[in-house]
Amino acid sequence: MNEIRCCFNHPNCNTFCNKKKSSAKAGGKMYFVRTHLDPFDHKQTCLASCLSPCARCQLLKALTPQENTQCQHGLFFLDGQRHVDYILTYPAKKPSTGRSGRPATHLDPSAPTSSAVADVELGSPTGTLNAQEDHKILRREEFEGKLRDMGLELEKDEDTKMSGMGFVKIHAPWNILCREAELMKLKMPTKKVYEVKQLHGVVEKISSLVSKVLEPLHPQVEEHQPKNIKHLSHTFSREKQHLFDLSDKDFFFDSKTRSSIVSRLKPDKTVQIMQQDTFDCLPQLLYEEWANYSVFYKYQPIGLVRKYFGEKIGLYFAWLGLYTQMLIPASLVGVIVFLYGCATVDDNIPSMEICHPRNNITMCPLCDRVCSYWRLSTACATARASHLFDNPATVFFSIFMALWAAMFMEHWKRRQMRLNYEWDLTGFEDEEDHPRAEYEFRVMQKSLSKDQNSKHKVITSFLVSLQLFFTFIEKLTCQDRLPAYMTNIVMMLLMIGVTFAIVFGVILYRISTKAALYMSSNPVTRSNAQLTVKTTAAIINLVVILILDEVYGAVARWLTVLEVPKTDKSFEERLIFKTFILKFVNAFTPIIYIAFFRGRLVGRPGSYLYVFESYRMEECAHGGCLMELCIQLSITMLGKQLIQNNLFEIGVPKLKKLIRYIRSKQGAFQEEERQKKLQRYETDHFLEPFAGLTPEYMEMIIQFGFVTLFVASFPLAPLFALLNNIIEIRLDAKKFVTELRRPVAARAKDIGIWYNLLRGVANVAVIINAFVISFTSDFIPRMVYQYMYSPDGSMHGFVNNTLSYFNVSHFQQGKEPMDPLYLGYPVEMCRYKDYREPPWSNTPYEISKEFWAVLAVRLAFVIVFQNVVMLMSDIVDWLIPDIPKDISLQIHKEKILLVDLFLKEEQGKARNLESRAWTEGKENCRRSSNNNNNNNSSSSSTVAQPRSGLLANSTNSL
Amino acid sequence: MNEIRCCFNHPNCNTFCNKKKSSAKAGGKMYFVRTHLDPFDHKQTCLASCLSPCARCQLLKALTPQENTQCQHGLFFLDGQRHVDYILTYPAKKPSTGRSGRPATHLDPSAPTSSAVADVELGSPTGTLNAQEDHKILRREEFEGKLRDMGLELEKDEDTKMSGMGFVKIHAPWNILCREAELMKLKMPTKKVYEVKQLHGVVEKISSLVSKVLEPLHPQVEEHQPKNIKHLSHTFSREKQHLFDLSDKDFFFDSKTRSSIVSRLKPDKTVQIMQQDTFDCLPQLLYEEWANYSVFYKYQPIGLVRKYFGEKIGLYFAWLGLYTQMLIPASLVGVIVFLYGCATVDDNIPSMEICHPRNNITMCPLCDRVCSYWRLSTACATARASHLFDNPATVFFSIFMALWAAMFMEHWKRRQMRLNYEWDLTGFEDEEDHPRAEYEFRVMQKSLSKDQNSKHKVITSFLVSLQLFFTFIEKLTCQDRLPAYMTNIVMMLLMIGVTFAIVFGVILYRISTKAALYMSSNPVTRSNAQLTVKTTAAIINLVVILILDEVYGAVARWLTVLEVPKTDKSFEERLIFKTFILKFVNAFTPIIYIAFFRGRLVGRPGSYLYVFESYRMEECAHGGCLMELCIQLSITMLGKQLIQNNLFEIGVPKLKKLIRYIRSKQGAFQEEERQKKLQRYETDHFLEPFAGLTPEYMEMIIQFGFVTLFVASFPLAPLFALLNNIIEIRLDAKKFVTELRRPVAARAKDIGIWYNLLRGVANVAVIINAFVISFTSDFIPRMVYQYMYSPDGSMHGFVNNTLSYFNVSHFQQGKEPMDPLYLGYPVEMCRYKDYREPPWSNTPYEISKEFWAVLAVRLAFVIVFQNVVMLMSDIVDWLIPDIPKDISLQIHKEKILLVDLFLKEEQGKARNLESRAWTEGKENCRRSSNNNNNNNSSSSSTVAQPRSGLLANSTNSL
Repeated sequence: MNEIRCCFNHPNCNTFCNKKKSSAKAGGKMYFVRTHLDPFDHKQTCLASCLSPCARCQLLKALTPQENTQCQHGLFFLDGQRHVDYILTYPAKKPSTGRSGRPATHLDPSAPTSSAVADVELGSPTGTLNAQEDHKILRREEFEGKLRDMGLELEKDEDTKMSGMGFVKIHAPWNILCREAELMKLKMPTKKVYEVKQLHGVVEKISSLVSKVLEPLHPQVEEHQPKNIKHLSHTFSREKQHLFDLSDKDFFFDSKTRSSIVSRLKPDKTVQIMQQDTFDCLPQLLYEEWANYSVFYKYQPIGLVRKYFGEKIGLYFAWLGLYTQMLIPASLVGVIVFLYGCATVDDNIPSMEICHPRNNITMCPLCDRVCSYWRLSTACATARASHLFDNPATVFFSIFMALWAAMFMEHWKRRQMRLNYEWDLTGFEDEEDHPRAEYEFRVMQKSLSKDQNSKHKVITSFLVSLQLFFTFIEKLTCQDRLPAYMTNIVMMLLMIGVTFAIVFGVILYRISTKAALYMSSNPVTRSNAQLTVKTTAAIINLVVILILDEVYGAVARWLTVLEVPKTDKSFEERLIFKTFILKFVNAFTPIIYIAFFRGRLVGRPGSYLYVFESYRMEECAHGGCLMELCIQLSITMLGKQLIQNNLFEIGVPKLKKLIRYIRSKQGAFQEEERQKKLQRYETDHFLEPFAGLTPEYMEMIIQFGFVTLFVASFPLAPLFALLNNIIEIRLDAKKFVTELRRPVAARAKDIGIWYNLLRGVANVAVIINAFVISFTSDFIPRMVYQYMYSPDGSMHGFVNNTLSYFNVSHFQQGKEPMDPLYLGYPVEMCRYKDYREPPWSNTPYEISKEFWAVLAVRLAFVIVFQNVVMLMSDIVDWLIPDIPKDISLQIHKEKILLVDLFLKEEQGKARNLESRAWTEGKENCRRSSNNNNNNNSSSSSTVAQPRSGLLANSTNSL
Repeated sequence: MNEIRCCFNHPNCNTFCNKKKSSAKAGGKMYFVRTHLDPFDHKQTCLASCLSPCARCQLLKALTPQENTQCQHGLFFLDGQRHVDYILTYPAKKPSTGRSGRPATHLDPSAPTSSAVADVELGSPTGTLNAQEDHKILRREEFEGKLRDMGLELEKDEDTKMSGMGFVKIHAPWNILCREAELMKLKMPTKKVYEVKQLHGVVEKISSLVSKVLEPLHPQVEEHQPKNIKHLSHTFSREKQHLFDLSDKDFFFDSKTRSSIVSRLKPDKTVQIMQQDTFDCLPQLLYEEWANYSVFYKYQPIGLVRKYFGEKIGLYFAWLGLYTQMLIPASLVGVIVFLYGCATVDDNIPSMEICHPRNNITMCPLCDRVCSYWRLSTACATARASHLFDNPATVFFSIFMALWAAMFMEHWKRRQMRLNYEWDLTGFEDEEDHPRAEYEFRVMQKSLSKDQNSKHKVITSFLVSLQLFFTFIEKLTCQDRLPAYMTNIVMMLLMIGVTFAIVFGVILYRISTKAALYMSSNPVTRSNAQLTVKTTAAIINLVVILILDEVYGAVARWLTVLEVPKTDKSFEERLIFKTFILKFVNAFTPIIYIAFFRGRLVGRPGSYLYVFESYRMEECAHGGCLMELCIQLSITMLGKQLIQNNLFEIGVPKLKKLIRYIRSKQGAFQEEERQKKLQRYETDHFLEPFAGLTPEYMEMIIQFGFVTLFVASFPLAPLFALLNNIIEIRLDAKKFVTELRRPVAARAKDIGIWYNLLRGVANVAVIINAFVISFTSDFIPRMVYQYMYSPDGSMHGFVNNTLSYFNVSHFQQGKEPMDPLYLGYPVEMCRYKDYREPPWSNTPYEISKEFWAVLAVRLAFVIVFQNVVMLMSDIVDWLIPDIPKDISLQIHKEKILLVDLFLKEEQGKARNLESRAWTEGKENCRRSSNNNNNNNSSSSSTVAQPRSGLLANSTNSL
């Protein structure tokens, strides 16, 4: 199939074609042109795209009429003139059964639209088995009627080769586009250009140098305008049409305007809408310069992305790009902090003291009976490792990351503002959403049941309900929604409870398995107990998180459907909110347990805390819990990213392709034959539909949580996130370009609720980091020791200070070690990590004064840290203006230029009018003197009768 | 002078007149009509206002032509047709000296406007002595030229009776108003009305009941529309003029639109602009129903305030009203909390224990040498009093107030949104400010000095600078501003340092005076020492605060002028920010000292802390510092309010009036004669100019600080604030209506920086209250004792627990009391309030474990309180939608109605066009068949040549 790709008139095209030629020279490799088509069809080449516009025209002419028709068939109506903007698809029960008695001519644009309404009353009482089918057809026709009422032109594809599917092509004529653009107050570029202020002096040199250095990082997408010239934008209005460059009406409005027309009507459940490509080479260019791993180091061509996919998706990728960019400095600093830890590990006095063989401290046993006393120096390795993450640089790093998060939010605001300006969205207001079909259905049900209670006739009630259905007098009250709300709350609590239970279960698994393994007579098993337990537990945790993630996604959707939100926007927001809470709890509960609870509820030797009266609670290894927190974090984060991204997002599609490939080999011939005859939209229909950006954002926000929430314990998190995101951008891009149906372009000014969630995560991060530093790490105890207790102001003696004494004779009956001579000498006093009074004090084993002092300092640190960081974030927020300076200057300049433009225009009109009136007046005089017939002398108002509507307006207003 | 007040066509007028009649019946009292005129001129009566529109017309006709002219003279141009919208006033050096050689005809609208520009080059090199005067005239004429260029009509008042003043009347013609309204995208009511959704069922009954109950609280200002009908608003556009009700062009645009025209030009320093009253009875109505103490319990007629003073001032009063309203519940709860304290004072175990005569605890002396031991029971009264403010209800109250503040902010957002909607400001964007004259002057100076450095000719440089002046190529860089910034920072720090120094000075005064008085041999002096010192210190504090407030206001203004901000808006914001910081520090430093530092840095018996080696630091009385904090707070707050508001705001104007009255008695006859001949604008010119809302807002925000920041220690603060504000509203209203020139109406969507400052105060309040509760009050020690140390879980023994022991033999040499037997028995151990080890422990007088425990709990409380309250505030923020539901529904409805309106209009046009085309086509045919001349047959485009511009448009677009 030699499908001709038409790409005339598009400035990107030449660039692409030139590039193509050169790359063809270099490698001679073939590219897929229409990436939405089956990528295995190698015959679709870049042939036409590489031709100049003129050549294309000649080529089109050179084709036989039959070929020409075939080429254009999928893109145009049957008349070959009106091109297809949208395709409606719907499942059809065998075409032309005629059961419903409605001829296909109903779809003819000239058919009276009232017939669909008339059918409503007749259709439903007779239907018994096929009632639902009828209802669907009814709804669909009604929808199509609405489309025609709006002025759209529809054409049914009668000879589709796909059974069970119906296709209706839609074309939006020029005047409808104009009207919609006016109603939507769309800003469009006018003919008037102006020069953007040039930098001069040193600034200009620096900026040109910077842009030269960054040159290779920019995608090879030529902008079709010189950068220092910009078109003035103005709200489109038909009365001011002369301001705009309407030389090419086919390209004046892009697909976004076209999309808005249909999206103003709520598409029914019975039909699906696909946006149709206008015939340019955008997808190919995107595939080259964006959805490609080889350009991973480059900026994204956001302008093109927006042009093809609309503002909403453009904003997502812009956000993802900025986030990834911002991760670069964060991961750099993180690596430096980590390296600092590595470098200072040998100067660290506490770990030196632990490792020193002379410091022969005997520790109390780690479990009852089977464990025995142990020497502290065996914990040397852990102590040294934990210094990598638990050093003063970590405190600096968490402050840095809190400010980083604030900077990120601010930068995003600025980027968003800049994009809004560049995309002419500054005056755009969010469209009000229409009620969802489900909501209307529930309202209808409600009023139906009301009417049935009051014993009316069925027909009447149906009519009434229809009336209600269209006028929305009824609405769902809180009372109607109460059961759903209750279910929501209960289910959410239940789900969170499930997460807690599972975490507790894993804890129990760890405790009991460890106890069991320690009891084992096999020494190998015993020595590997710790490792075995930790590894298996971490894997269990990860698997549980991954499974629950899917479950929670489904539960959140189900709960939101139960709620019956009124609009799509509210549906999306509620769904996001619920999913966010559940997934966040799921991902972070085990981590929070390790950070703040593990090792705190242990009790003390002689009076341990027992679960189920037999298992002692877990302790952290001697290096503190920070080390374990770090391990858990990295496993969860890496595991989630590797498995969810790579396995689910790369592997599964690959697998699907493989299966398809094998299948196509089997029925190769038939399939090929069939595919040849299919229209573009028919093949597109086989692609997966676009399911919204929620999963993409959600993935990223959870990652943002990993990067900010516990960064105090894992400075390498930004690095891992960065590596992941570099892949993620191209992965998502590939998915959007090749694997999904082209989504209906949606306009958006901002990323909506996600910004608030990000802000929330950043705020919580401050508090959590404060607690991690003060409670999980040993930072505060070290400080307190150094400045309050140390005899010489150094850290020497710190380890000894943190260990309390226990008299082994105070062990409870049956809990003492079976092998007290394990270390080779009898033990009288063993040590344990806690601040408690020694056995010889008046109040043995009571909490000591040091404990309270350290606690007070810890809490004070939390207060100071939280408030200082919050204040600094606020200052960052305040110092960085939300609107970039150059943009605000430009907006200001545009305002002045626009006012000037209008004033000048008006003066010109006034002068025109005067001169016209003067000449016409003269002519009038001449005529009246010549003819002497009774000419209407009150000509002052009719004199200026203009040829164009514009001058008429000026008469009105001046 | 029988000035006729014209109030036709204004719906408020009838109400007012009816009211007037009835009140005239009741009291027969006379009112001032034109409150901006001298209130002592009782002859200005309400005569004309009380006439119906028709009667007014008859009356006007019945007047002799001479009377009529006189009546209209001040309000209209000399032609009696065009009424005056603005008056420019400027100081003029004896009119018509002719020195500058510019004839008065320059002011004629028909004069060529370029002459002013041409004069620039000629005028300046010649001037020597009168150069500045010339420059001023030049600037003024240039400004007037600009006004004329904009299309405004100017008329000079040649025969003013006031020497040294020039007046220029300005009239904005209809087409200019239309153009400006279009450029400003002003929303205006269209002819289309729609019904606001009626409530029904129970809700309606409740709402009508509520509105009936609240009936007497509403001002007697009838709204001129039924409330359930609303005009659809749409952005004004001359092309859509037919949508609007233009039957009365004089009243279609109100004074706000007129104001915007002049404010788009930056008025020069050389002239002042006064807004002129349109002839309605608004000021009288406002005086009656708003600026009147007798209506203090009523809502404010905000709509009228906005109508007369513009949105900015309207928003201030709306905000003040909401704040006052919100203070009602706060002060109610505050009173209840206080009463709870009163009621439970007898059940309070700690104060019972202190007061119990059997608990004979001997306390250590309060000062060195001269003081002796004392019995704790003598502190009984203080202990009981402090319970009033230091009880568990206070904790509840400060949480309540934090939430109250959040609620207040939210409610204000909603109110603002509602007002924005009602005032048709929803689409309004802030106008870009023009650079201030001072800024331009500095830029000019800069470029001048640059040019002079490069040794150019003077003339050239002047021309260049002028060019620069108009195109703003140059701007002030950070480098230019560096000295000003440095001065700013240094001065701000210096001023804050001064405040600290003064507070420290007052402390020293207190310590030294107390010591001196205790040394006195006079027993009366000694016994009154405490009282004398406290009273005098508080008064000194208050006086210092009041004086520094004025000083700081001046300093902040000076610093801001130094900075040379670019625009008026930025000037205002910088000024506000600096004033706010200085005044806040000034007001709250003494209070913060008492709350958090006093009594903490005392040391302990035997090792007290000394200032200047001789004065012991102050201690709080035994009841805790909360009591003293409360006293200081109430004195500062009440003192500030009473003196600043009542003395400065009421007293000073009264005094001025009295002086004026006495003076007018002296020169009564001359004055009256002169006044009679003066135009309205000439008398108005004697009133004080409007100085901005900053002082009003500043006063209120400092009060908001008193209400929220330390509310934990002073639950009656909201009550005092409420009482003050009830007066404040009417006081401000009176000032605006009678004592100030009518300010130029300014548009504003929000209260700007004040909202952020309020938000900041509310946030700081949470932290400060947390600290006050945990550190200043005894709440936490009581809790800790009850749950950790109390043997029986009650508060018994708490007092004993908080007192440490001191062995009197450990007193330093020379510091022991001179009269150790003062109590009648020898003392071995005395007690002091602190958590320290007893003398018999291993570490005597060391800080005890209890201290650390209490400190840890205190800090934990701060963390919990801060985060919980912040979370709750966020939840309040999140639960209360920013846009009231009914408003958002209405906005949605209006959007739909507008789209419907346009679509219908278009369909109508299309149909019209079709029928026209059909009939004209028919006629064409007839004509062509009849005449048979060579008619142009391509008539399809000329057939529909329309009469009106609107139809032309539809041809273009359809």
